[in-house]
Amino acid sequence: MTTRPIITLTTDFGTSDHYVSSMKAVILGINPDVRIIDISHDIPPQDVMAGAWVVRNASMLFPPETIHVVVVDPGVGTNRTPVAIRIKDQLFVGPDNGIFSLIGEDFEYQAIHLNREAFWRDERSNTFHGRDIFAPVAAHLSGGTPLHELGSPILKLVTFRWAVPIADRDGIQGWIVHIDRFGNLISNISEKMIRDHVDQGRTFRIYVGNTILDTIHTTFASVPDGEPVGYIGSTGKLEVAINRGNAREMLGVEKGAQISIILQR
Amino acid sequence: MTTRPIITLTTDFGTSDHYVSSMKAVILGINPDVRIIDISHDIPPQDVMAGAWVVRNASMLFPPETIHVVVVDPGVGTNRTPVAIRIKDQLFVGPDNGIFSLIGEDFEYQAIHLNREAFWRDERSNTFHGRDIFAPVAAHLSGGTPLHELGSPILKLVTFRWAVPIADRDGIQGWIVHIDRFGNLISNISEKMIRDHVDQGRTFRIYVGNTILDTIHTTFASVPDGEPVGYIGSTGKLEVAINRGNAREMLGVEKGAQISIILQR
Amino acid sequence: MTTRPIITLTTDFGTSDHYVSSMKAVILGINPDVRIIDISHDIPPQDVMAGAWVVRNASMLFPPETIHVVVVDPGVGTNRTPVAIRIKDQLFVGPDNGIFSLIGEDFEYQAIHLNREAFWRDERSNTFHGRDIFAPVAAHLSGGTPLHELGSPILKLVTFRWAVPIADRDGIQGWIVHIDRFGNLISNISEKMIRDHVDQGRTFRIYVGNTILDTIHTTFASVPDGEPVGYIGSTGKLEVAINRGNAREMLGVEKGAQISIILQR
Repeated sequence: MTTRPIITLTTDFGTSDHYVSSMKAVILGINPDVRIIDISHDIPPQDVMAGAWVVRNASMLFPPETIHVVVVDPGVGTNRTPVAIRIKDQLFVGPDNGIFSLIGEDFEYQAIHLNREAFWRDERSNTFHGRDIFAPVAAHLSGGTPLHELGSPILKLVTFRWAVPIADRDGIQGWIVHIDRFGNLISNISEKMIRDHVDQGRTFRIYVGNTILDTIHTTFASVPDGEPVGYIGSTGKLEVAINRGNAREMLGVEKGAQISIILQR
Repeated sequence: MTTRPIITLTTDFGTSDHYVSSMKAVILGINPDVRIIDISHDIPPQDVMAGAWVVRNASMLFPPETIHVVVVDPGVGTNRTPVAIRIKDQLFVGPDNGIFSLIGEDFEYQAIHLNREAFWRDERSNTFHGRDIFAPVAAHLSGGTPLHELGSPILKLVTFRWAVPIADRDGIQGWIVHIDRFGNLISNISEKMIRDHVDQGRTFRIYVGNTILDTIHTTFASVPDGEPVGYIGSTGKLEVAINRGNAREMLGVEKGAQISIILQR
Repeated sequence: MTTRPIITLTTDFGTSDHYVSSMKAVILGINPDVRIIDISHDIPPQDVMAGAWVVRNASMLFPPETIHVVVVDPGVGTNRTPVAIRIKDQLFVGPDNGIFSLIGEDFEYQAIHLNREAFWRDERSNTFHGRDIFAPVAAHLSGGTPLHELGSPILKLVTFRWAVPIADRDGIQGWIVHIDRFGNLISNISEKMIRDHVDQGRTFRIYVGNTILDTIHTTFASVPDGEPVGYIGSTGKLEVAINRGNAREMLGVEKGAQISIILQR
């Protein structure tokens, strides 16, 4: 018995409307054996980079040949291009609007402009390509249609770059790029960058909002309840949390805020 | 290998309680091979017509013989009737309280009053027929029990009618029947009705709340960011959105509001 | 054909981040044939007892040998113990922090301290044992690894006790232990306790917040719309609701409030 193919779904559709289940219905109509896994449908509406963050962190963990359908698509129906992409052993389907920026930046990719309408739904709207283009294309991919048959090769995806943290002899300047459900502040400063620029034993201060920390702990529960704590999170980046509390609310820090590691003299 | 049967679930139970998973546990206990697809558990509590809208738009896209369990059931435990229904190649299970109004209105149906307790759960509560009646009945249907064995035929389902849009020589008068996660205002005025009553090239105005539009565009991204736009949405009805914005919030329009197309002289 | 194993997931991770799907990716990488069922990801952040409540009410309904992964884990990365447990014909995996209190209280259990790192993920963080320990352990269990191979036996799980209702000749004193999505107030007073202490025909008053009731009805729809109603809910406990309304909001009662049944003289 061969393993059943997997299609994941990441959208900003929410779960109170019929949009997500319409995509599932179309997929199952084309390939009834596929497994469908929801990654998230709670991407903030039309927030392409928030979607890119979730996709980057979830997708590369899946078994080989998983197909990730990603629909955060404020430009649906305009001339933005529908694409399918291979990155390492994973496949991606969605609009070429920057949603694949964070994985496309880290890895080589092979991209196809989806322009073979034979793989689309017969009835097509101008506002719901998730149901009418991306879902059927993913279902055909899962059924064995090779990537290159779905359209024409394209060389360069639309890519947005997040601000990259800056290191100099005074320390590291980064940004809060995501805040999770717990209110944990997730920065773009990697553990490796800290190792490279903060010598073992060197004292430092971490500044974020009005909060100053002087230690990177192992986990949020390393400090007493209600206290702020810096630690390396599960994506390998510096995070700031409140033990058993919500750092966003209690520290008043929002996405996009600066976070600095300043070396002490 | 035969294709595994599909059961979909649509409820107002939310996902923070054990209600939805209790239904899944009961289904899997009776038919471990069934596929379970969540349509939505975020129907506003006890809002039968909001549930009817989601079911209508999602269900008919599914593969033949899909079984749709729909539980928005404020009258559970009273004398409202539990039913199973065949509509075209789809099956439905739920309370006969109007939740099937929108599909029952569009299609012929064959309905059964669920009164054979052999197909129910042994332990039964008065407040959770989703777990105790509808889930086990759906599981038995998915396992091959014929519809007519589940109870006695009934001729007429409880049906609520939504206001139907009205057309005359001045134009079309309709209503906003749903507002989606994006804040898009979805009317009950169909593309066909517009084609039938607004001659090609005839000028018109669309009035909704305090907003006046004079064009039906292809998609919401046809206008600059932040501007209101009318277009035919993915359910074939006239919608009004704000490009990259939330029309409900920015236009101050709620479900039930009037929307008019007035022909210009 | 043997039935595919089932893994359920209950977490406080929400569905807007990549946390839940990372767990699913890890599970499917180890055992691609397993079925994954979401119980809830909307447990209030770090509310161990709210998680315990959902697990208790959902888990025991699942088919034999279902594996329940439960991750509400504010102490992740500290010395709290990761465990796997057999309770009757169900298996559980998660932190030993009280999350299994309510089932461990009702049933005998066999518990294992998860200390065989061979069954964990190679790369491990200090803040995401859901992905790095609990998901892979559950996947190995689902693939046939016996419970006792995953670690060393432990005799006693961490158990928190909820206040137990008290009965005397004046009546019963209990507490609201959960409020569901509908705002229904769910107490810890069981139907059996009421039968044992309130003689048939004896008059009584139910006091909760500022509301006084004198009847236990069959279902919430037994009273007119908008009125408060007491009834035995689907978990076998006394509940108070507003018919077609939200009792939490309309009666101003929160979780933890007292509820009393006072016998009349």
